[in-house]
Amino acid sequence: MGKITQVSPLAPAAFPELPVIAGVRFATASAGVKYQGRTDVMLAQLAPGTTVAGVFTRSKTRAAPVLDCQDKIGGDSDAGAAILVNSGNANAFTGKNGVASVQEITAAVASACSIPASRVFTSSTGVIGEPLPHDRVIASLSDLTAGLDESGIAAAAKAIMTTDTFPKGASAEVAVGDRTVRIAGIAKGSGMIAPDMATMLVYIFTDAMIGRDALQGMVAGSADRTFNCITVDSDTSTSDSLIVAATGASGADVTDHPEFDEALHGVMLDLAHQVVRDGEGATKFVEVTVTGAASDTDAKTHAMAIANSPLIKTAIAGEDPNWGRVVMAIGKSGAEADRDRLSIRFGDVEVAKDGWRSAKYSEEAAAAHMKGENINITVDLGLGSGTSTVWTCDLTHGYIAINADYRS
Amino acid sequence: MGKITQVSPLAPAAFPELPVIAGVRFATASAGVKYQGRTDVMLAQLAPGTTVAGVFTRSKTRAAPVLDCQDKIGGDSDAGAAILVNSGNANAFTGKNGVASVQEITAAVASACSIPASRVFTSSTGVIGEPLPHDRVIASLSDLTAGLDESGIAAAAKAIMTTDTFPKGASAEVAVGDRTVRIAGIAKGSGMIAPDMATMLVYIFTDAMIGRDALQGMVAGSADRTFNCITVDSDTSTSDSLIVAATGASGADVTDHPEFDEALHGVMLDLAHQVVRDGEGATKFVEVTVTGAASDTDAKTHAMAIANSPLIKTAIAGEDPNWGRVVMAIGKSGAEADRDRLSIRFGDVEVAKDGWRSAKYSEEAAAAHMKGENINITVDLGLGSGTSTVWTCDLTHGYIAINADYRS
Repeated sequence: MGKITQVSPLAPAAFPELPVIAGVRFATASAGVKYQGRTDVMLAQLAPGTTVAGVFTRSKTRAAPVLDCQDKIGGDSDAGAAILVNSGNANAFTGKNGVASVQEITAAVASACSIPASRVFTSSTGVIGEPLPHDRVIASLSDLTAGLDESGIAAAAKAIMTTDTFPKGASAEVAVGDRTVRIAGIAKGSGMIAPDMATMLVYIFTDAMIGRDALQGMVAGSADRTFNCITVDSDTSTSDSLIVAATGASGADVTDHPEFDEALHGVMLDLAHQVVRDGEGATKFVEVTVTGAASDTDAKTHAMAIANSPLIKTAIAGEDPNWGRVVMAIGKSGAEADRDRLSIRFGDVEVAKDGWRSAKYSEEAAAAHMKGENINITVDLGLGSGTSTVWTCDLTHGYIAINADYRS
Repeated sequence: MGKITQVSPLAPAAFPELPVIAGVRFATASAGVKYQGRTDVMLAQLAPGTTVAGVFTRSKTRAAPVLDCQDKIGGDSDAGAAILVNSGNANAFTGKNGVASVQEITAAVASACSIPASRVFTSSTGVIGEPLPHDRVIASLSDLTAGLDESGIAAAAKAIMTTDTFPKGASAEVAVGDRTVRIAGIAKGSGMIAPDMATMLVYIFTDAMIGRDALQGMVAGSADRTFNCITVDSDTSTSDSLIVAATGASGADVTDHPEFDEALHGVMLDLAHQVVRDGEGATKFVEVTVTGAASDTDAKTHAMAIANSPLIKTAIAGEDPNWGRVVMAIGKSGAEADRDRLSIRFGDVEVAKDGWRSAKYSEEAAAAHMKGENINITVDLGLGSGTSTVWTCDLTHGYIAINADYRS
């Protein structure tokens, strides 16, 4: 794990003001999971009737808390619910003891909050392969339940950080008839988790009223175009979790409500971008858009090949408008491409067209775009109508320093 | 392109003595393709009756010379043949002009060597997107044909280098009945090609007698277990080419001759390892072996996920026995895995077993292995009998320096 000595240069100016979401209360505590005196547990208590949707890592080595959440996420919503997150230990690759730890914690939270254990969702983030000291988490529950507060979300955003360089929050308001629906979300990622791997955890709360299946559909759809369209280094955590809870406290039904769907999508996209902006060693925020692909799936395959290419990411770090490397990434992605129909732009500068360097190419103009903090790479394949946009950051000495220069 | 100021620490002590291959003559010249006064073209002239096999990049944006070679590789072998390679310009993403350049060059080589153009194979490596000054290459042909020499292979190995830090050669001898068959090969890669991308070019010559289809079968089979099992940074060139020429001059027929197949495989593996040892910024040579997979394909998918993971490669650079990142890579690869059957070894040290840290785990012993120059990561999945071994290097500040710190 690297020592994080400064906030990412791509961080927002400040943590945003997040609205209170009726029906949700937060508390944080220092349980001493790995270190003493560091806030490392967060509890969110959800009112009876809250619907909960979720999307989780597809890793085949996913952690015990993830498997437990996946089992429970489709359950009914009459009882209240709770989300408990600890940092300092991922409870991943911990075998049967890891499963037992989840059972102990969820049972204790259920008892403390007077809800069924089937309505307790947990996440753990931190070292992997070490037994989770679940007794310490459980011992913090009395502090947590005593401290529950509807305006505690900013503290919660900090409690789930590991080596993130800034806390991440986003919100939206939507008019539904004569009512106002509020959405507030927090995330962590993708600073390094000592000493193992980047993990993204996201919790979004709303006072909207919506059934579980409708919410799950919205969340899964937006996750595909937000959190599943970002990459820092192509590595995938064993613990990635996104949970969205709708308390219904506003009384406003948002089933089949496109404006709510759009606002929720906006909060998810904002948080996803913040995760990229906290990418290890990042100095540039990069948007890659592919159009004209044979299908949307092909477009995303090409876009991710570009966003994950070490040669492209180092060229961006070096402010080098090296479009040859983009041609290379398209060629290797495996999705359909025709070399002689490709066109590529860096920002507004057309660098390649119809399979060769553009007649309009200006090295000076392309280099000027690369000097900015926000880099846009656009590729048109000239084949069909498939499109995709993904986001990433550059690959710098900072990434190597964080991941190689310090022993775990 | 980075300035390469020193030879890779993983380089062999010296370029090997390579045997003369009867029926092959080499020449090199300074054509001034990109720079003046630098040896940048290589001609290999092959005697009549030489069979030629080849394996090429699967990139969808592959260069004009690659497409031309692929068209010709299945042709008959009665006439002589020639291989012409230039460095300094890849003739890639150059549209119809690129195709025309290949036609001009192959016609001129055919005329100079008195062979059909269909028996002239060319490769180009260097910048992409720039028109190849084929007139300069053609103008060097009189020097090249005048300088042909059967002992010129070492000079040829140097002529095809771009930012390689050392020339790469390997050889073998095989007894076939009472005759001796010789094999000698050269390669370039995967130093960076100014200013674009890593390219691997490999040329292997033998005086064995063998039909084209039999040779192609051997070459393709070994390529799958050698050159297709190495990775430096997961990026794939538009120009990767492997050509194997058998002159038949030894009079020894090696069709269905396992010892020859094995010797050829050995030369290919040696050259493939040398390419990894010249990987950009490499300080460690890494062998990843996966066993117990559901299939060989699954084993290779897992092995490549490990070998391409930036988090694993930076951990190796930092001499950190971070087996959690190996669990992560297995989880993300997409191939079949069961978290609770995994076992992992670093060198001889068992670090994980049956889904958790091994009872025998010694941090000290694992860390000691990571301090060496040769790192072995072995994963058993406990599912079936699929196996794969791949090779890579670590990811260091040197890689970033070469690819980001200098503008093209």
